[in-house]
Amino acid sequence: MGTGAGDESSDYGQLTPIPPGPRLGIGMDSCVIPLRHGGLSLVQTTDFFYPLVEDPYMMGRIACANVLSDLYAMGITECDNMLMLLSVSQKMNDKEREKVMPLMIRGFRDAAEEGGTSVTGGQTVINPWIIVGGVATVVCQPSDFIMPDSAVPGDVLVLTKPLGTQVAVNAHQWLDMPEKWNKIKLVVSKEEVEQAYQEAMLNMAMLNRTAASLMHTFNAHAATDITGFGILGHARNLAQQQRSDVAFVIHNLPILAKMAAISKACGNLFGLLQGTSSETSGGLLICLPREQAARFCAEMKSSRLGQGGGSGQEGGAGEGQQAWIIGIVEKGNRCARIIDKPRIIEVPPRGLGS
Amino acid sequence: MGTGAGDESSDYGQLTPIPPGPRLGIGMDSCVIPLRHGGLSLVQTTDFFYPLVEDPYMMGRIACANVLSDLYAMGITECDNMLMLLSVSQKMNDKEREKVMPLMIRGFRDAAEEGGTSVTGGQTVINPWIIVGGVATVVCQPSDFIMPDSAVPGDVLVLTKPLGTQVAVNAHQWLDMPEKWNKIKLVVSKEEVEQAYQEAMLNMAMLNRTAASLMHTFNAHAATDITGFGILGHARNLAQQQRSDVAFVIHNLPILAKMAAISKACGNLFGLLQGTSSETSGGLLICLPREQAARFCAEMKSSRLGQGGGSGQEGGAGEGQQAWIIGIVEKGNRCARIIDKPRIIEVPPRGLGS
Repeated sequence: MGTGAGDESSDYGQLTPIPPGPRLGIGMDSCVIPLRHGGLSLVQTTDFFYPLVEDPYMMGRIACANVLSDLYAMGITECDNMLMLLSVSQKMNDKEREKVMPLMIRGFRDAAEEGGTSVTGGQTVINPWIIVGGVATVVCQPSDFIMPDSAVPGDVLVLTKPLGTQVAVNAHQWLDMPEKWNKIKLVVSKEEVEQAYQEAMLNMAMLNRTAASLMHTFNAHAATDITGFGILGHARNLAQQQRSDVAFVIHNLPILAKMAAISKACGNLFGLLQGTSSETSGGLLICLPREQAARFCAEMKSSRLGQGGGSGQEGGAGEGQQAWIIGIVEKGNRCARIIDKPRIIEVPPRGLGS
Repeated sequence: MGTGAGDESSDYGQLTPIPPGPRLGIGMDSCVIPLRHGGLSLVQTTDFFYPLVEDPYMMGRIACANVLSDLYAMGITECDNMLMLLSVSQKMNDKEREKVMPLMIRGFRDAAEEGGTSVTGGQTVINPWIIVGGVATVVCQPSDFIMPDSAVPGDVLVLTKPLGTQVAVNAHQWLDMPEKWNKIKLVVSKEEVEQAYQEAMLNMAMLNRTAASLMHTFNAHAATDITGFGILGHARNLAQQQRSDVAFVIHNLPILAKMAAISKACGNLFGLLQGTSSETSGGLLICLPREQAARFCAEMKSSRLGQGGGSGQEGGAGEGQQAWIIGIVEKGNRCARIIDKPRIIEVPPRGLGS
């Protein structure tokens, strides 16, 4: 999700003269505004949401990674400024507040630092619910960003994080809710849920910055990040932006280990196998020339940047990030679909081998 | 209030090389980030809050005016991009939602248009309370903005909107609360409260853009906008930013008619006469060379820009905006104060003469 994917879709006439240059408004991850200065563009995005994990520090990291991800989806690797948006819950007492909020802010700032930027301001309010989010802004030259509109038939689709974060977060909550737990206990152990939850947290906190950088190296044609609308929703959204008559066809679904089984046991409650399960701070979905995709994935794997999950942590197994070729770009009607029986790739928690 | 006035005050080390140029972080209205491109700076601000007037269209205008005001306080008259931050209340039914939210969005967009910018994106969430706000961003050259740090002894202080918005909004709510109304009914009539409320709404919806433009014409030395901390709070905040050893001394308080009387009748509940009553989308407090101040006020009065309150509306009386010389800059310790018995300037509603 992000700036462009906001709920408001009405368009508003531009009254001042529009400088030349590409412009992206409502509809995609970031907005791109041509500036009056020397061919530069302003790219920015905002996102805010409610906590979904129990660890405030990790929640701060996830929120920041999620905001930055909208820039990364455009192949932008730098961020000039970050503002933080926060609300403190009125239901917290002073002690809770003093314990939770500094940790969340620290996590957010640490992720911003990992993204090479810093938080210079923001706004904090009191609200019934905790809110955390931010605004990421960069001023860049045309070569710094990749407009998400150049996919062509023959490209392949690459995904840079496994799916299943929503299922993992919910299953983890169900550990303490017997009537919910009973529905899934035959397909998964408590330990497996705990591991998947930890893995989901690490993945959500991981920046998509390495992927953004490699989009340039390997000549990516278009990309988006996977969040609230699920892999299929965002694939459809991206397909609609393409200049060529293309269709995206997804063959493989890399999913956090055991989360597909949980989804099935719940009668496809989340739509995980249908591609509609929400993700938070998900991976990038990237259209790459076929001959470049394998090398892209190999470079992701050998990279040591953007491991997320904690300062200085190099990923549980000391390895880079995984990426998967999950589909192809065909000639078509700017739509996206998942094939009838997609291959489920079970992605084990890091530290357990891969 | 604004970006810089956020509740978080911890500073965070800048790890990437800092380009030369002025930089403003947490503490003032907008943040100013030197960019890597040709001496340009990124100036941005964010604000969001909860509705305080009953008219959703006017609330949208006020929210937008309040966000833009942080740029105007730096003498910036252009805005390259606006993002809208919204939450829809979960307590509203579909009908209320469909009636209220489009009006609020329209008001916000209309004010953005009046500010010469447009809304290109944002984020909407569901929340117990309605939230409305935005993010204003501009990329500008050093000559486009006035750093708020150059006041010198001998300057005078000018204020561009009357005080008392919080009192007016509250008094208006008390019309329907007999036990509250009984406290003030001896000093004010229902009609006067209604007029003050309407006037407060028009003032809050009015952009500070004309004032920002005239800051350049008349060589302003520093400015801030008056919001949540009241006139004295923001004067103190501004005084602390000054490079010279100065003190701000406020002699006059222009206040919406009858609001001073209400404040007194309530035992100074709001601190209006002490300068601590919250304002929303208040005026600019500007340090001007003494010889320029009267001309600044005269130009404000003859201006027809930035009347706010409705598309094409030229102010109730077809006149420009009022501005008042309210104090002086002395040699001092970077503090601000109101003299013992400040002169209260009763500002009548427009249309009733001025």
